[in-house]
Amino acid sequence: MDKRALRAALSVYLVIGSAHCKGRPLLEVVAAALRGGVTMVQFREKDSPLSLRETVALGRALRERCRQFGVPFIVNDRVDLALLLDADGVHVGQEDLPPSEARKLLGPGRIVGMSVSTPEELDVALREEPDYLGVGPVYATTSKADAGDPVGTELVAYVRSRTDLPLVGIGGIAPENAAAVIAAGADGVAVVSAIGSASDPEAAARALARAVRGHQAGV
Amino acid sequence: MDKRALRAALSVYLVIGSAHCKGRPLLEVVAAALRGGVTMVQFREKDSPLSLRETVALGRALRERCRQFGVPFIVNDRVDLALLLDADGVHVGQEDLPPSEARKLLGPGRIVGMSVSTPEELDVALREEPDYLGVGPVYATTSKADAGDPVGTELVAYVRSRTDLPLVGIGGIAPENAAAVIAAGADGVAVVSAIGSASDPEAAARALARAVRGHQAGV
Repeated sequence: MDKRALRAALSVYLVIGSAHCKGRPLLEVVAAALRGGVTMVQFREKDSPLSLRETVALGRALRERCRQFGVPFIVNDRVDLALLLDADGVHVGQEDLPPSEARKLLGPGRIVGMSVSTPEELDVALREEPDYLGVGPVYATTSKADAGDPVGTELVAYVRSRTDLPLVGIGGIAPENAAAVIAAGADGVAVVSAIGSASDPEAAARALARAVRGHQAGV
Repeated sequence: MDKRALRAALSVYLVIGSAHCKGRPLLEVVAAALRGGVTMVQFREKDSPLSLRETVALGRALRERCRQFGVPFIVNDRVDLALLLDADGVHVGQEDLPPSEARKLLGPGRIVGMSVSTPEELDVALREEPDYLGVGPVYATTSKADAGDPVGTELVAYVRSRTDLPLVGIGGIAPENAAAVIAAGADGVAVVSAIGSASDPEAAARALARAVRGHQAGV
């Protein structure tokens, strides 16, 4: 995927696992989000009660659904799972496999994203040459227990000043504050709860897409 | 590796990670164990304080050391790590990737082992066609927090009665009780603490090898 297409795909990036759906089936929530206009999906079944056997089965169904919508499907952390699911790529944290190692296994043409939550982590990430960066938590979030203190849109702006890599903000982002993340230099917003916890995930995805696109277009 | 060679490799199987070495460097403990005569090594850095970046670096050093001794090097759970380290195989638990999926990624000719701790888990394992089974915990163990109650040599004997797959007992095995595990039908013993916690890992490995080989030879 070229950089321009990847920037577009990052616009409204759903990051989600079974634990984030308020007891609803993950596949239903993701399907609704796809109808509402999410542009990329990351399957994040980390610290999950599911066995990897169950995770593989669920991942195959999700992967198929994303393909129907022409939306890239990314797997969190486990490159073996990404390969088994024929995912479009993998997203790694600073403690996970380094992007350079992940890329050896995935081969060329797949997406490798990396999380950044401090300037020091940015230095690490830039040496590893991921395809995109996830920067956050921008705002306070309850979706990730170990997310740390919010870094604000300031870190988004700082990362943008250091690199022209495709870049997405994550952490506590909702339709009301999405524009500020884009204004700080992000190509898109990644969300967990804003869609996973919404009573109407399709409407929530649509509202986010509107907020992001409105600002991207300069409206 | 053919079945006969695999049975021999399972004779004295060291399963180990940084957490099991009483603060000593893992590479030193494994090197001593190899000198003492362990016949297979499993790198088990699960729930480790190491990042995967550090795990990859450590794994490459271990892998090289095992190669010098002509001893198969197996990675616990993560097939992506096994591929990166060019390991001889992977060992999976019941919650990990199923052997059939692991084998898709590893390709033919690599070893896939699976843990079994109940008759029901044996049924699952036999459907998956792993290359060998690890049965336990045979005796009480402190090396694995979630190991469950000891299954005794009875489960080893039961598994042996159901399959001629290469089979290793694991859990609380030491030179004093290793012979009983072989007598119950195991091809070898897998140990963590018996070597990792020993004041002299080389001597501990040698004592285990003697206990197992003595019994295998009918002495």
